[in-house]
Amino acid sequence: MKLVSFSKAGGAVRPGALVEDAGLVVDLGSSYPDTLAAIAAGVSNFEKDAAHAGYKLTEVKLLAPLANPPRIFAIGLNYRDHARESGMEVPNFPVVFFKLPPSIIGPGDAIVLPAITKEPDYEAEFAFVVGKGGYRIAAQDAMQHVYGYTIINDVSARDIQFSTSQWSLSKSLPTFCPIGPAIVTADEIADPHALDVKLEIDGEVLQHSNTRELIFKIPELIEYISSITPLLPGDVISTGTPFGVGLGRNPKRWLKPGETVTVTIQGLGQLTNPVVAE
Amino acid sequence: MKLVSFSKAGGAVRPGALVEDAGLVVDLGSSYPDTLAAIAAGVSNFEKDAAHAGYKLTEVKLLAPLANPPRIFAIGLNYRDHARESGMEVPNFPVVFFKLPPSIIGPGDAIVLPAITKEPDYEAEFAFVVGKGGYRIAAQDAMQHVYGYTIINDVSARDIQFSTSQWSLSKSLPTFCPIGPAIVTADEIADPHALDVKLEIDGEVLQHSNTRELIFKIPELIEYISSITPLLPGDVISTGTPFGVGLGRNPKRWLKPGETVTVTIQGLGQLTNPVVAE
Repeated sequence: MKLVSFSKAGGAVRPGALVEDAGLVVDLGSSYPDTLAAIAAGVSNFEKDAAHAGYKLTEVKLLAPLANPPRIFAIGLNYRDHARESGMEVPNFPVVFFKLPPSIIGPGDAIVLPAITKEPDYEAEFAFVVGKGGYRIAAQDAMQHVYGYTIINDVSARDIQFSTSQWSLSKSLPTFCPIGPAIVTADEIADPHALDVKLEIDGEVLQHSNTRELIFKIPELIEYISSITPLLPGDVISTGTPFGVGLGRNPKRWLKPGETVTVTIQGLGQLTNPVVAE
Repeated sequence: MKLVSFSKAGGAVRPGALVEDAGLVVDLGSSYPDTLAAIAAGVSNFEKDAAHAGYKLTEVKLLAPLANPPRIFAIGLNYRDHARESGMEVPNFPVVFFKLPPSIIGPGDAIVLPAITKEPDYEAEFAFVVGKGGYRIAAQDAMQHVYGYTIINDVSARDIQFSTSQWSLSKSLPTFCPIGPAIVTADEIADPHALDVKLEIDGEVLQHSNTRELIFKIPELIEYISSITPLLPGDVISTGTPFGVGLGRNPKRWLKPGETVTVTIQGLGQLTNPVVAE
């Protein structure tokens, strides 16, 4: 199932299931008060229910599928060729930083560039959502803790990022965490480590890789993070970006107002966001 | 006013006001459902109310005065001599990382050392709590956004901290964020940048400085952080630790089971925590 949040004509936020073939969103709100509560409860399959209203996709606005997860863990330098282009060593352990949830926006929402950064950059990322939380989860049990998958564009203010040693703040500007369009439940993805990842700006492909290139894969990330601090239901873990970010180009290439960024991950759909000046 | 959380005979968590001279805790629960809600509402003075129950301090257990703040921003290398002892440059901008709220414990609670770190260290820190949130707060307006002050011991797993470039996870192990004993409302502290800060282990003074030595002071921290990402009511900002941490000693000195760590900050009281092995 592809879980989304949506609103109709500016109304309240509703949880929905995306039925792509039919171009429909089915309202799940009558049985599940919100997506996060469902995740927290460990729900992994929603029954089809004729009582639920279906809306044409064209009638609704899709919102961020998780608006306020407990935490967004993000992994740095998790593809070898991206570590190289960033001028950094391939790490021996996962490099973990945070994106603050208030930076979240949904599909179609604008990435707003404030004057404080002159170097806004994109990062296509494959992310997963924790269902059942836990502490000290062994790698071999880790996949049982994955509720589903989604796409994150880890927008980063490079000048702020490299003005100190710590990265989290530079990745937490308002609108710098596009997420969606859906949380695709784990049962729909046969192998999460064999998914094509692509980022385009106005049709030009700037990043193109596959999750099989991840240095630390999902079980190792869960085992590592949960060996230090407990994971909570609804936590998002964004697994890092592949080669091709603006920072690594010659000349460097920053996001510009008027551009449109689209991240496509196999089986997870497309996350498209326009870029505007504040 | 010195705001605390407390429980009596293992009962529910209650918000209270500490009346030190009388050795009392006054229950504020009937008018304020919890401390954070009061902070979020911008309340800065509680009226004395004879209807509130008073308990002897010996009858109650003080808990963490904020159990689940939205975020704990922590500042690295914010005292010159501590930057030097850590072998790092004095930064040009505040170095901001995060401590995850589930790591919070209260006064008297044990710092539990897990086997995963061989290098647990202490860090005495002066912290403040945001009352009114805001985005792009000018330094000259910043003090209006400070609700009160407290003490944090920024316990850090040095081996985990320096195993990658990013520090947040190493400071977020369970029990690694002792906080309290109270949130002292801003009106009680005439000059927050003239407070003695001291850390002792079993009576031996290991850190001793004064908040006047802070490189980035409260208005600059609020201006800087809020220039990048909005501050929220209840956010905690821990301003960094002075010289004298275990990492900087020769030989290096790590926390050991059986020790008791006490951080004292002028006007804010004492935060005492025993150290135990898991």
